[in-house]
Amino acid sequence: MSSTQDLQKIIAGRRAAEFVQDGMVVGIGSGSTIAHVITALGERVANENLKIVGVPTSEKTRRNAAKLGIPMYNVDDVDKIDLTIDGADQVADDFSAIKGGGAALLWEKIVAFNSRENIWVIDQTKRVPKLEQYLPVEVIPYGSEQLFKRFTADGFHPTWRLDQNGNPVRTDSANFLIDLHLPVIEDPRALGEELIGMVGVVEHGLFTDVVNQIVIGHENDVEIIKAP
Amino acid sequence: MSSTQDLQKIIAGRRAAEFVQDGMVVGIGSGSTIAHVITALGERVANENLKIVGVPTSEKTRRNAAKLGIPMYNVDDVDKIDLTIDGADQVADDFSAIKGGGAALLWEKIVAFNSRENIWVIDQTKRVPKLEQYLPVEVIPYGSEQLFKRFTADGFHPTWRLDQNGNPVRTDSANFLIDLHLPVIEDPRALGEELIGMVGVVEHGLFTDVVNQIVIGHENDVEIIKAP
Repeated sequence: MSSTQDLQKIIAGRRAAEFVQDGMVVGIGSGSTIAHVITALGERVANENLKIVGVPTSEKTRRNAAKLGIPMYNVDDVDKIDLTIDGADQVADDFSAIKGGGAALLWEKIVAFNSRENIWVIDQTKRVPKLEQYLPVEVIPYGSEQLFKRFTADGFHPTWRLDQNGNPVRTDSANFLIDLHLPVIEDPRALGEELIGMVGVVEHGLFTDVVNQIVIGHENDVEIIKAP
Repeated sequence: MSSTQDLQKIIAGRRAAEFVQDGMVVGIGSGSTIAHVITALGERVANENLKIVGVPTSEKTRRNAAKLGIPMYNVDDVDKIDLTIDGADQVADDFSAIKGGGAALLWEKIVAFNSRENIWVIDQTKRVPKLEQYLPVEVIPYGSEQLFKRFTADGFHPTWRLDQNGNPVRTDSANFLIDLHLPVIEDPRALGEELIGMVGVVEHGLFTDVVNQIVIGHENDVEIIKAP
């Protein structure tokens, strides 16, 4: 990653944190861009006496946000989430996205689904006309080898998500991840419905009809786009 | 349960076990009727030198079948399952079923989905014109309280599946179960698609387009019906 891209993440993350208002219940995403959102929120809690409650999309986010003094609650311990700020691996022109590169897609989707408003923060390299990178799918371990064979037969070019020791990555819900290597995804909604209908698939990384605003870090400024 | 119903389960279970042939990989279901299938298969392994491999739909089935000398393998350790014999809570005239009263619906569906042929064994009290009993839904614990509220808002009359100590039942995949109390289910396929599309739902107890034959225990005989 270039230092330019790092800088874009920092300025976009800090800008996105400004959307958070006093008294809000805030869903807090995962990933390298969101790390800057968490830092900025921690500063606002310390310096502006901002009163917020955070709901994490991963155990890692829970730990990091709690360390900075943000009170963290489970999604089931709040009435409703006002605003969720999360990253994305790719965002297409139709406002669909692929998430899950950081293995947190299931909790990210659960938090997003229970949030009144959703903001995604990305650097400009994540913007694409159409989605066209590997697609993470979270699967139940029992039967996952059979599902992998089915993905292969369906032409989805699956690979296992492995840790540095070569073992399957376990998500925060103790499932496995299979990454699908597809050509350009022309119809993310239809593909998502096909995948979720397959027995053993818990969730997939396609996010459609979710986002309200996108915060994009460019070289020297931040662009904010509202979804229709 | 009446002793008549017990007897129906025994004769139906023993009859269903006769479908198993030498050399088969057999998916073995869960529940009180399937206990008799397991007993009969154990006898055939011991007395007829039947060579089979079993694939369990629950940890309980794995233990009980292994005790009787049936070699048990995970679904991922076999090439393909030839025949699965399982029970059902209700089977409707359109050959749809509700399963999951025994909390094993997810693994049952995974095994069924990977089986060339599926047989359900039931006593005659399980046959209904249309499905109309509580519908088990397996859900990710994180966010399950929010999902429960959504089910309530949707008019699904949810209840938590609790153990005898009042704690949520954990499935073999460590998820929770929510039972939905619906009126007659007119369109099980449509309801299944709606449920599986809800974030946090892992699987539901509606089985459509699965079964090939039903073995039904009556008072004095066994009826076998082929699905169209």
